[in-house]
Amino acid sequence: MTTESTFINILRGFATYPAARGLLDDVAVIDSGDASLIITHDMMAEGVHFRSNANPADVAWKLLASNLSDLAAKGASPVGVLLGFMLGDDAWDRAFADGLEKALSHYNVALLGGDTVTNCGDKRALGLTALGWATCRPVPSRSGAQVGDILYVTGTLGDALAGFELIDAGFDEVGPLADAFNRPVARITDGQALAPLVTAMMDVSDGLLLDAERLATASQLGIEIDLACVPLSPLYVSYRTDSLESRMQASSWGDDYQLLFTAPPHVVLPVPATAIGHVVTGGGLGLKDGTTRVKLPPTLGYQHQ
Amino acid sequence: MTTESTFINILRGFATYPAARGLLDDVAVIDSGDASLIITHDMMAEGVHFRSNANPADVAWKLLASNLSDLAAKGASPVGVLLGFMLGDDAWDRAFADGLEKALSHYNVALLGGDTVTNCGDKRALGLTALGWATCRPVPSRSGAQVGDILYVTGTLGDALAGFELIDAGFDEVGPLADAFNRPVARITDGQALAPLVTAMMDVSDGLLLDAERLATASQLGIEIDLACVPLSPLYVSYRTDSLESRMQASSWGDDYQLLFTAPPHVVLPVPATAIGHVVTGGGLGLKDGTTRVKLPPTLGYQHQ
Repeated sequence: MTTESTFINILRGFATYPAARGLLDDVAVIDSGDASLIITHDMMAEGVHFRSNANPADVAWKLLASNLSDLAAKGASPVGVLLGFMLGDDAWDRAFADGLEKALSHYNVALLGGDTVTNCGDKRALGLTALGWATCRPVPSRSGAQVGDILYVTGTLGDALAGFELIDAGFDEVGPLADAFNRPVARITDGQALAPLVTAMMDVSDGLLLDAERLATASQLGIEIDLACVPLSPLYVSYRTDSLESRMQASSWGDDYQLLFTAPPHVVLPVPATAIGHVVTGGGLGLKDGTTRVKLPPTLGYQHQ
Repeated sequence: MTTESTFINILRGFATYPAARGLLDDVAVIDSGDASLIITHDMMAEGVHFRSNANPADVAWKLLASNLSDLAAKGASPVGVLLGFMLGDDAWDRAFADGLEKALSHYNVALLGGDTVTNCGDKRALGLTALGWATCRPVPSRSGAQVGDILYVTGTLGDALAGFELIDAGFDEVGPLADAFNRPVARITDGQALAPLVTAMMDVSDGLLLDAERLATASQLGIEIDLACVPLSPLYVSYRTDSLESRMQASSWGDDYQLLFTAPPHVVLPVPATAIGHVVTGGGLGLKDGTTRVKLPPTLGYQHQ
């Protein structure tokens, strides 16, 4: 099977229009006079992104939030979405639509259109396209980090991992950790506040280490992360302890949808965020735990095979 | 299983933003100052829209052309697309990407971004979002037809049906009828020329009769079609004869991607098109064959179950 990176590399060969940002960002940016439209498309597949027995309303929520999170990381003000939906069981479809309505209402985002297809297979695949207007130009990219910048992340990491484990073990489907997995938050207000100040920004959807490496690659620089600084929630720590291994796992698991960004040291941040590393010359990712150098794990995050 | 119309009716209950056009059109229209962005999302599923042994380059072509056809029906000038792709067999994926590159190049359209997912099922589902700028405002809708307007269609109908039958029978995979099915043409230039003159316009993707009924419903009027006027190609006639039954089948099968539009009788059309009916008071669809009234067939076109 083709890997995601191989396939995207093939596409990159002909995605040469500037708005495509070399397929190195999560969004495309289309300028129109004084405005910039920001557009993203994310899919979720049954058995990969959601379990077959997942609550359809949770699936709808996560499909929306994961797309809006990409807009948030560009400081966008969301406008609307188009849904690509695979029809299936009647009760599931209705529960999904009901959940989507609630999620759209929560974020004050419009359903603009889309398409439905019959499911001829045994698994569902869902797609969503989200559009928003830039609130700040130039629109933050992954590629603007500068040597000496601080690397920050909002919120805490690992809660979605812990939530997934709890759900997978068959209990705590309604607790805050399960919610972190099922009902991630798109940090739209934070993104808008940060956009004018950052040198690069993206969301943490596939794991901190993998996403930080992508930011480093796009910026053609290196990033050093101190795992001792990675923010963990008290709930995460109580469930999974606060060891180096636990910090490493929280940093290499996706679904957190926090904002990861770089800014010069003198910048005063308008929203709470934790400094977890800095931008250096060279390339790739380096890890330490306090003052001790730490080897990179074999897998930095979630990559589609 | 939910039908497409049931599910869309549920969504319509909360798709109240004007840009959504009440989910009665194939596109959303987002105004931005002096410009209007036109956006559409269409999916294709293996076993529904394409056969498992289809040429991946044909699948890529059709996925692009079917989306661009929606833009064409609004007189849009296409800008770019976002691809939702399900990874699978390496050779298939590469052939798809190669075909997509050629199709994008043919239409001078940019690949802007998208997403890939692992295929955990047994069938592929692909999605494409296409964006374009309006070349004419107001942007034609399905809902503007007026009593007394003539109903027109570009090109010929039924060629894709004949092509599908030939392919399904295992031969003529490279003839013009097979091409009509595998490599439909998005009528972008025709759409741009017609947009300032039409009262309503859409593409024929699910069958003339079904799509004409949708146009009538959106316009809250009736449409009368004379099957004797439905344009057939010499190749279609030589393969399937020119009977009333054959005309009915050519009019109730999808994949033609011709433009269907209404215009007042005095309008001189800038592109070739065939007058096939007219807009009347009342609602729904009426059929005749010359001067003889014809009963509607049980199925007007292709509807997802």
